[in-house]
Amino acid sequence: MHDLVIRGGQVATSFGTVRCDIGVAGGRIATLAEHIPGGENVIDAGGLLVVPGGVDSHCHIEEPREDGGVMEESFVSASRAAFAGGTTSVVCFIPQWKGQGVWDRYQDYRARAARGMLDHAFHQIISDPTDAVMEEEVPRLVAEGVRSLKVFLTYEPLHVTDAQYIRVLETARKLGALVTVHCENFDAIRWRTQRLLEAGLIGPRYHAWSRPSVVEREATHRAIALAELVDQPIQVFHVSCAEAAEEIARAQARGLKVWGETCPQYLTLTAEHMGRPDGALFMCSPAPRGADEHARLWEVIRRGTLDVISSDHCAFSIAAKRGDDFSTIPNGIPGLAARMPLVFSEGVSKGRISVEEFVALTSTNAAKLMGLYPKKGAIQPGSDADLVLWDPARQVRITNALMQHAVDNTPFEGMDVKGWPVMTIRRGQVVMRDGQVQAEGGTGEYLPRAAYGMAQPRGITPNGFGA
Amino acid sequence: MHDLVIRGGQVATSFGTVRCDIGVAGGRIATLAEHIPGGENVIDAGGLLVVPGGVDSHCHIEEPREDGGVMEESFVSASRAAFAGGTTSVVCFIPQWKGQGVWDRYQDYRARAARGMLDHAFHQIISDPTDAVMEEEVPRLVAEGVRSLKVFLTYEPLHVTDAQYIRVLETARKLGALVTVHCENFDAIRWRTQRLLEAGLIGPRYHAWSRPSVVEREATHRAIALAELVDQPIQVFHVSCAEAAEEIARAQARGLKVWGETCPQYLTLTAEHMGRPDGALFMCSPAPRGADEHARLWEVIRRGTLDVISSDHCAFSIAAKRGDDFSTIPNGIPGLAARMPLVFSEGVSKGRISVEEFVALTSTNAAKLMGLYPKKGAIQPGSDADLVLWDPARQVRITNALMQHAVDNTPFEGMDVKGWPVMTIRRGQVVMRDGQVQAEGGTGEYLPRAAYGMAQPRGITPNGFGA
Amino acid sequence: MHDLVIRGGQVATSFGTVRCDIGVAGGRIATLAEHIPGGENVIDAGGLLVVPGGVDSHCHIEEPREDGGVMEESFVSASRAAFAGGTTSVVCFIPQWKGQGVWDRYQDYRARAARGMLDHAFHQIISDPTDAVMEEEVPRLVAEGVRSLKVFLTYEPLHVTDAQYIRVLETARKLGALVTVHCENFDAIRWRTQRLLEAGLIGPRYHAWSRPSVVEREATHRAIALAELVDQPIQVFHVSCAEAAEEIARAQARGLKVWGETCPQYLTLTAEHMGRPDGALFMCSPAPRGADEHARLWEVIRRGTLDVISSDHCAFSIAAKRGDDFSTIPNGIPGLAARMPLVFSEGVSKGRISVEEFVALTSTNAAKLMGLYPKKGAIQPGSDADLVLWDPARQVRITNALMQHAVDNTPFEGMDVKGWPVMTIRRGQVVMRDGQVQAEGGTGEYLPRAAYGMAQPRGITPNGFGA
Amino acid sequence: MHDLVIRGGQVATSFGTVRCDIGVAGGRIATLAEHIPGGENVIDAGGLLVVPGGVDSHCHIEEPREDGGVMEESFVSASRAAFAGGTTSVVCFIPQWKGQGVWDRYQDYRARAARGMLDHAFHQIISDPTDAVMEEEVPRLVAEGVRSLKVFLTYEPLHVTDAQYIRVLETARKLGALVTVHCENFDAIRWRTQRLLEAGLIGPRYHAWSRPSVVEREATHRAIALAELVDQPIQVFHVSCAEAAEEIARAQARGLKVWGETCPQYLTLTAEHMGRPDGALFMCSPAPRGADEHARLWEVIRRGTLDVISSDHCAFSIAAKRGDDFSTIPNGIPGLAARMPLVFSEGVSKGRISVEEFVALTSTNAAKLMGLYPKKGAIQPGSDADLVLWDPARQVRITNALMQHAVDNTPFEGMDVKGWPVMTIRRGQVVMRDGQVQAEGGTGEYLPRAAYGMAQPRGITPNGFGA
Repeated sequence: MHDLVIRGGQVATSFGTVRCDIGVAGGRIATLAEHIPGGENVIDAGGLLVVPGGVDSHCHIEEPREDGGVMEESFVSASRAAFAGGTTSVVCFIPQWKGQGVWDRYQDYRARAARGMLDHAFHQIISDPTDAVMEEEVPRLVAEGVRSLKVFLTYEPLHVTDAQYIRVLETARKLGALVTVHCENFDAIRWRTQRLLEAGLIGPRYHAWSRPSVVEREATHRAIALAELVDQPIQVFHVSCAEAAEEIARAQARGLKVWGETCPQYLTLTAEHMGRPDGALFMCSPAPRGADEHARLWEVIRRGTLDVISSDHCAFSIAAKRGDDFSTIPNGIPGLAARMPLVFSEGVSKGRISVEEFVALTSTNAAKLMGLYPKKGAIQPGSDADLVLWDPARQVRITNALMQHAVDNTPFEGMDVKGWPVMTIRRGQVVMRDGQVQAEGGTGEYLPRAAYGMAQPRGITPNGFGA
Repeated sequence: MHDLVIRGGQVATSFGTVRCDIGVAGGRIATLAEHIPGGENVIDAGGLLVVPGGVDSHCHIEEPREDGGVMEESFVSASRAAFAGGTTSVVCFIPQWKGQGVWDRYQDYRARAARGMLDHAFHQIISDPTDAVMEEEVPRLVAEGVRSLKVFLTYEPLHVTDAQYIRVLETARKLGALVTVHCENFDAIRWRTQRLLEAGLIGPRYHAWSRPSVVEREATHRAIALAELVDQPIQVFHVSCAEAAEEIARAQARGLKVWGETCPQYLTLTAEHMGRPDGALFMCSPAPRGADEHARLWEVIRRGTLDVISSDHCAFSIAAKRGDDFSTIPNGIPGLAARMPLVFSEGVSKGRISVEEFVALTSTNAAKLMGLYPKKGAIQPGSDADLVLWDPARQVRITNALMQHAVDNTPFEGMDVKGWPVMTIRRGQVVMRDGQVQAEGGTGEYLPRAAYGMAQPRGITPNGFGA
Repeated sequence: MHDLVIRGGQVATSFGTVRCDIGVAGGRIATLAEHIPGGENVIDAGGLLVVPGGVDSHCHIEEPREDGGVMEESFVSASRAAFAGGTTSVVCFIPQWKGQGVWDRYQDYRARAARGMLDHAFHQIISDPTDAVMEEEVPRLVAEGVRSLKVFLTYEPLHVTDAQYIRVLETARKLGALVTVHCENFDAIRWRTQRLLEAGLIGPRYHAWSRPSVVEREATHRAIALAELVDQPIQVFHVSCAEAAEEIARAQARGLKVWGETCPQYLTLTAEHMGRPDGALFMCSPAPRGADEHARLWEVIRRGTLDVISSDHCAFSIAAKRGDDFSTIPNGIPGLAARMPLVFSEGVSKGRISVEEFVALTSTNAAKLMGLYPKKGAIQPGSDADLVLWDPARQVRITNALMQHAVDNTPFEGMDVKGWPVMTIRRGQVVMRDGQVQAEGGTGEYLPRAAYGMAQPRGITPNGFGA
Repeated sequence: MHDLVIRGGQVATSFGTVRCDIGVAGGRIATLAEHIPGGENVIDAGGLLVVPGGVDSHCHIEEPREDGGVMEESFVSASRAAFAGGTTSVVCFIPQWKGQGVWDRYQDYRARAARGMLDHAFHQIISDPTDAVMEEEVPRLVAEGVRSLKVFLTYEPLHVTDAQYIRVLETARKLGALVTVHCENFDAIRWRTQRLLEAGLIGPRYHAWSRPSVVEREATHRAIALAELVDQPIQVFHVSCAEAAEEIARAQARGLKVWGETCPQYLTLTAEHMGRPDGALFMCSPAPRGADEHARLWEVIRRGTLDVISSDHCAFSIAAKRGDDFSTIPNGIPGLAARMPLVFSEGVSKGRISVEEFVALTSTNAAKLMGLYPKKGAIQPGSDADLVLWDPARQVRITNALMQHAVDNTPFEGMDVKGWPVMTIRRGQVVMRDGQVQAEGGTGEYLPRAAYGMAQPRGITPNGFGA
């Protein structure tokens, strides 16, 4: 009856942990039971946690560049990194370049993604919301299950004006898509950058100086206010500081559908890292803040203001990061493999969150917001059998080799973590065992997404019962 | 393999709803599966919700009175009322009278409770924390699984001074017990009452005048502050207004383990009801407030500040409520049977909360806080098979007959609700079907409780994902 | 020794009221004394309040238009209106048109203003912050005492981008000038306007629909955040709603030098007025809100968040306001004469503020922020003898004739006020007596301004002692 | 015409500073003028500030003890200390002992106070609110100008129950008197003290351990809530921490008439001081907190939450403070002379407040709240000529000798201050010149008080204009 039985684990979901067996049939979870008898294909999970496969809803993978090239991380290499770190599904980005359309790009990107092993869904970046794109192409994309439009309020040449952002919100509202937003003020950063360069302050450390918290807070408030005007739900991406999170909390308290994401780099790295000789390897946007920000961010995570932790994986090799001038060094760091171990170690092992909150933050909440739940993000009858066997006691020092991604560096090099994924199962198939990835290219599935989340403005806050 | 299979229902827990079958063996849930094949003892739950049996953590049942009598509601009649309304477990109160001990009372109360059909656990009321009681008897009670001490900050002759309350907190801290508190200021109410009586304002409507919100807020702040001083978790009982709930929210934001409960009467009744000719039937403490308080309370429920809705069931017959002077009419109303239908109807059917939040508020959260989880409050392998088949579309007008309790009145008489329990199963046995209670006396089990809740100060707030 | 003695009045300043005589010499206050003996030129103020002459820091008077014309209200007519309403000093605006400079305009405007009878100072509007303007002309203006730069975040063709606004902030910071800001989001209003017009919703009432509170709040937050980035004090003009004022209060609590102004129209008019047949006469920006906003604004005034009430006087005749399409009807209403009576009547006579707060809001605070204090806004030895004898009991119905301005309408027509100025004295000269203005053109003086306000982030909040 | 002219000073009041001359006649201020010509009795205040004489509204002077003795500080010695430190008026305490009345005590105390040189008013302590006292004696006292009733929520044997406190509030409300409150929880402190003593933790340092902030916050919330219930204004005495001040701020935001006082010891001393060998000399209640509390208190002072800084002068000699057990060492420290120099130095000289705020905090606000304004606390025609010539640049190291009080110690010994009073004038008479006190005993006047403060819930918050 079952193709596979996982026996004896502590099955941890976003709401609780129970010792039970899991029976898998046809790639899906068929049965949860105190004991499933038999059989041949049994995995012993004794002493381990069994958690839902990670859902990383913010990854830049094999993304086409404006010059015709693509990012260094391919879907194949990204799949290896993801499985190594316990992630089984990703949502990645189709770019739009100004003056260009999106439909052809989508088809091309579908083909690229199909070569990998990861289950995958897409965000569509909008940088040029022309009538043709918004009225003809985007509706087709949404019908294909690309249910979110991403805008950059900063980043040349992708950034949009308020008028363009409003246009995106309006279209998303009609189509039932989510809007996701990179919130920093373009003009403010440009002004600061110009003044820094004029003063000869050009190294990577000045990247953080060019974009202080206030420019993120401003854009966050603006993004929310305009979404409120148009009556459209949004997710604020990669919140780096409590100051910006406060704007999200205020919006949530007003009953708005505004969600916030953060990333492991904002919980572990600081602006100081960019002052090192290899500082460029830590450059991402927003920039990591002071060390005291970590505790503040954990606090807003615990309050539920930020409810998704994704990687914002965007890998560049050391060679690509070379340069003297912070304003021309590419931004972004790889994090696909490190994400779940870092969140588990900093969160669960250090007593900041429960195991259940770990699952919510790294898998379930993203699955819900991205319209993938309960196919993904859950361990219940009918869900895909995406499962990770997690050893909560395993101590590991992060090295680039362990990350298994395409590039030659990780900003988390040398960090010690406690808790590690020892086996990853994707739709009932073991795709990683003890660090060995054993999936074949082309086995990843496209995930057409349903509408975002659910209708309620706020769920019950479980005060100490959350897990 | 299974004694009973519930097939085809929408299984709703505090975290989500999934269509699956439930297999019961030995009174416990053995299996959740997409499909359980076979067999003889199958219940068709098609079109119905299947929710965990209700846990009502605040009930006055067959409580001994100081004069040697007992309350009108026996454990047998209370079991009927509970099953009729979808509740399968209760936590009720052992009183202590000043100058008396608690251990003998406990044994007597265990015997009384054993005659009923409900699974039951106890709070111990402390009104006279002498050395003998606190150092000898209470530790024995806690060892028996009576894991909470209840104090009244008002109510003659049960109320305690701050010094006595501190003593209770200190003892509970050593023993790992929870403290639950009735928060109103005794002196303030006595003063107001005296002034009202002097002015000839004596009818039931003046009960509300004698105890405005500010006396509840004051005592709530004080109860929390002294608990903070002693470093002891507490639950604030029957919060009637947002003003008091705000004090709880502030404490939670400071990281304190303070939980808050409310009751259906504060969500449906108002001070106006006490102005009716039968106003005494609506008298309880705290008093119901203005009608605008209902929306404010739902708001703090949605934010998780108040996470348990219990009944504060305390039944008096019309004869017992007779009298001209509000200060001598007994306080309390029956609510054991009406609780879950009212919360479902006012909450879920009116779009204020999700089905999952309904389960959390009426069953799971109380089970966790009372140390009964996951035996109670859950639908997962290993949990007791306490299940309710709930028809979300059934429209019912509440009458006293439907309540099946011992007394001749309900304050909810004539209210229309949408959503109704059509079958109640206790440990795998059908104990109510279509309103017919079919359990035998003496089948209720005593529930020795574990420690309260869990260690985290706050769980993840699922923003729209809660359910 | 004294040219003039004002005897027997209740002398009210922003801090207190005292019965004393005022001796004037050389146009200035020489003496305050319990009794000043003598002499010939004595005014009996018995039964009256004596308050400092009003300072209206936001007036559009005889402003050049882009087409080469000027506004209907001349400095002569404005002086009549001001004196009639108890105001003796104004701060008005020199416009800059895109592609044009500011120095010549200043000289022209000085000449125009000199023809009137009011003491006057200037704000410089910046709509095109080119290098030439910001580095050459503006420093000259500041040296002349034009100590504030005004920017519009909306209003075509005057509005500026964030980059331009930052440029203005940066220049003001170097020069020690204040920046004053019209806060509404340009793109958001344009989008709403376009959608309304497409839907055929074109009358004056839709002016309010085109610019809801959220667009004002957004721009207020942004204006403050960018000022925080540049470290430059700002005043937020004409705050119309508590939602925007909250952003100011938050900034003040962070210790930022951010001040907020409101106007009588936001305390007395509503969006409903624009639905009348003569609705265009009530159109101004931001638009008046719902009637419940008045109480909220008084609350933030009482808390000190908004500390200046000016008129935003901008007069158009009925003919100029004609048109069918709200997007083309000119915005602005006259309020120079009505300002102080409305604030006194709605504020003091209705018990919302004290007489001292009235003085602070209409005179002293503006004088301080505009760098005119203690020459203006005070009754103390050495200050200009700008004094108003105010009858707190006089009841008047506002008519356009009483306003004495150049145009044929007032949006306050027919409103009843209690409290009225019966005599206005400017630098020791009686310029209005019982409604009769008796000053000669050309007697107004230019007021070169000092730096804004003072250094402290927040003064003592007098809790009930303020006045 | 004038008996005395003070020429050339910077006259600083709570609202502003102006260079002018002050003419005194008959002990009162007759004239403020740019220049007062003549005459014989002229004091040159060039280079100095001239501020209103300090009003210290919280002093224990020559207070009768229960055993029939009196406190060491007599009205004569206290007058010396006060004048040395710039204070010209005090409000001190008539005690009531349980079982005793208050009227005879008042007459005795009037006689004692009359022997000193300070102008004086009284608070009446109520520890036993019997019918006779509250209905017969207290009304007579209020008619005599004793317009405040003081209660202790802790301190054996003076402390009152909630019921007694309510009685005091009710009486004060009828009589138009203020209620002032010492807010700490009696039972909580007793419990902590007992536990500390049991553990052998008995030295002065444990005084602070026995009464943490939470017991002050609790009592503050309770004092306010019961005052809200009765609808009676109160002043919360000697607020030692921001946590308690927050409760006051919340009450003020609700529009309640609740005022807060703090003292120099809470701005300069810490709990660490009590760990010194002479730790007993720093013991007062509430206890000084951690050093980080100072900044938080200045913040709430700047926001106006706390608007009076008095000394809580309560002097004990070293001999009286001897003992091993903190629970039996008398509480209280002398501060009458040090108060104004400490507030000026820590406040004005360190840039935390303006000169005007200094005047408000040490003189004007207390005068207003105590019903002594504008006779005291003001420099305006008609006010008493209580004036202090203050040298803002004078640097002084505090010694006990400089304090001129009766006891042999000051907790501020060795502290360096910048800013010092060089002359004190009481009702037109120079009573201190360069530290030499030159007033004769018996010249102090009794000050019958008017009703508290004013009617408005909150004045204008001058944002940067406060001074």
